[in-house]
Amino acid sequence: MDDSKLVKRARWLAKSFRVAKGDSFRLADVDPGDTLGFGSEAKPRARTALAQGVELLARLQDKLYAQDKWAVLLIFQAMDAAGKDGAIKHVMSGVKPQGCQVFSFKAPSAEELDHDFLWRCMKALPERGRIGIFNRSYYEDTLVVRVHPELLRAQKVPPDLLGKRVWKERFEDIRSFERYLGRNGVLVRKFFLHVSRDEQKRRFLERIDNPDKNWKFSSADARERGHWDAYMAAYEDMIRHTATKQAPWYVVPADNKWFTRIVVAAAVIEALDSLDLAYPEVGAEKLADLAEARKVLVADE
Amino acid sequence: MDDSKLVKRARWLAKSFRVAKGDSFRLADVDPGDTLGFGSEAKPRARTALAQGVELLARLQDKLYAQDKWAVLLIFQAMDAAGKDGAIKHVMSGVKPQGCQVFSFKAPSAEELDHDFLWRCMKALPERGRIGIFNRSYYEDTLVVRVHPELLRAQKVPPDLLGKRVWKERFEDIRSFERYLGRNGVLVRKFFLHVSRDEQKRRFLERIDNPDKNWKFSSADARERGHWDAYMAAYEDMIRHTATKQAPWYVVPADNKWFTRIVVAAAVIEALDSLDLAYPEVGAEKLADLAEARKVLVADE
Repeated sequence: MDDSKLVKRARWLAKSFRVAKGDSFRLADVDPGDTLGFGSEAKPRARTALAQGVELLARLQDKLYAQDKWAVLLIFQAMDAAGKDGAIKHVMSGVKPQGCQVFSFKAPSAEELDHDFLWRCMKALPERGRIGIFNRSYYEDTLVVRVHPELLRAQKVPPDLLGKRVWKERFEDIRSFERYLGRNGVLVRKFFLHVSRDEQKRRFLERIDNPDKNWKFSSADARERGHWDAYMAAYEDMIRHTATKQAPWYVVPADNKWFTRIVVAAAVIEALDSLDLAYPEVGAEKLADLAEARKVLVADE
Repeated sequence: MDDSKLVKRARWLAKSFRVAKGDSFRLADVDPGDTLGFGSEAKPRARTALAQGVELLARLQDKLYAQDKWAVLLIFQAMDAAGKDGAIKHVMSGVKPQGCQVFSFKAPSAEELDHDFLWRCMKALPERGRIGIFNRSYYEDTLVVRVHPELLRAQKVPPDLLGKRVWKERFEDIRSFERYLGRNGVLVRKFFLHVSRDEQKRRFLERIDNPDKNWKFSSADARERGHWDAYMAAYEDMIRHTATKQAPWYVVPADNKWFTRIVVAAAVIEALDSLDLAYPEVGAEKLADLAEARKVLVADE
């Protein structure tokens, strides 16, 4: 399949899950088990499609890197066991490591808590020519911190500044920040991998029962299930307030890993394709340079 | 003089030079030689006032540090030889170094140019409990970069994003960023030390004629004098678009160093005094802790 067909397919697939205007978004409208009607018999085709997508991604990233003009920031948010790590690993498996930086944000350190909440993520922003991946991000400061107000107090923001408006203000600040990034050549795309409560339970049990996966499980993860509804409300509110044309959310059904991965790949392909990627033009001077170097090398015994 | 009187005097002095609403600001209205009518006979009194101010500042900063709640960001911008370094040195001479961080931003490095323009300054933001001083800042990206458009191109922002609106957008992004800082407990105060073209010439000549000051002079500094009017227009536009109640500019007359310094000290005192600074309260538990530790120490042979 040639690239233009692959891009067309990616656009079609990504479009179904893009939220570029949050006002009327309802999380209840998205089924975590959605596969656009494809059954499990489609899995082998999906595998081929993913492989083709990964190769195309590698070609696009090579241009991004050579051109050294745009940066791309991909943000992943999800409940535990929704498949963030797997999606990042599979989708980015073809790109060269020097053009890609993954940062996983865990509970903030004492130094990080001593700064404003965007600080640790700002520091990690990708350079031009690079794809930066945030495995969790500043959005945690509107999610886990919202579900657990004691974490907000731990951030040491002066209490007078933590009125009722705090979440509205954080959303506004994030929107402004992402608009600023767009204006400065950083393309932002955000992914919420939407897993169901039942499927999470199944995956947790697998982590407990399979010794090779034990390291991935902590009982704290399971405890968070008790706050499921509060988390869903926080995700919905986050998407409603921060989905914009310049920095859209993709709400990706995550109960079927094979489907999650082709949707994420499609969205990244679409994002890169929207840029004016091209290898830098080689001018007359550079060509003369190359010809001269050629002569020297050939003459070199 | 007791602290409340010192604070009152500082408020009075700072007020004359504060711009908290930029709309109607005109740089031509500020005389770089202004001393509020005080002649050089006032210099010894000014020296005493500065010494008192520096001591008060040290006491305020000690509380800021112990309380570990607010951060303070002081931004200094000026033409060369306006006295930024001297003002920072004299005003901050009393504060303990661990509570104060000075960052001097020079021409950006290749790594810095590979990021968005706020990046290098964001990284250097002060921690809670600290005073951060930016000797030059992201405002340079609306000043020297505006006067020399080739520097804008060197920032490698995709050219399509550099339309006519670029300065308006940068001002908007800076306003949003400083609003965000305020909401997260970082108090922002900005100083433009306003020196006259004649006084700059006098100080440059002194740097050339005095061997101990030669290191401070580069002929590039003198060449920038050729762009004086463009710089003044850029400073005025910057102040008009970024002076806000939360992050005001102080436009400080800078032809008389003794006067510049007491005005800067006054503004910093006023800023710190506006916070609810206090040593952390010692609760019953901590008191019991202290009493217990006392016993152990006394019994220790």
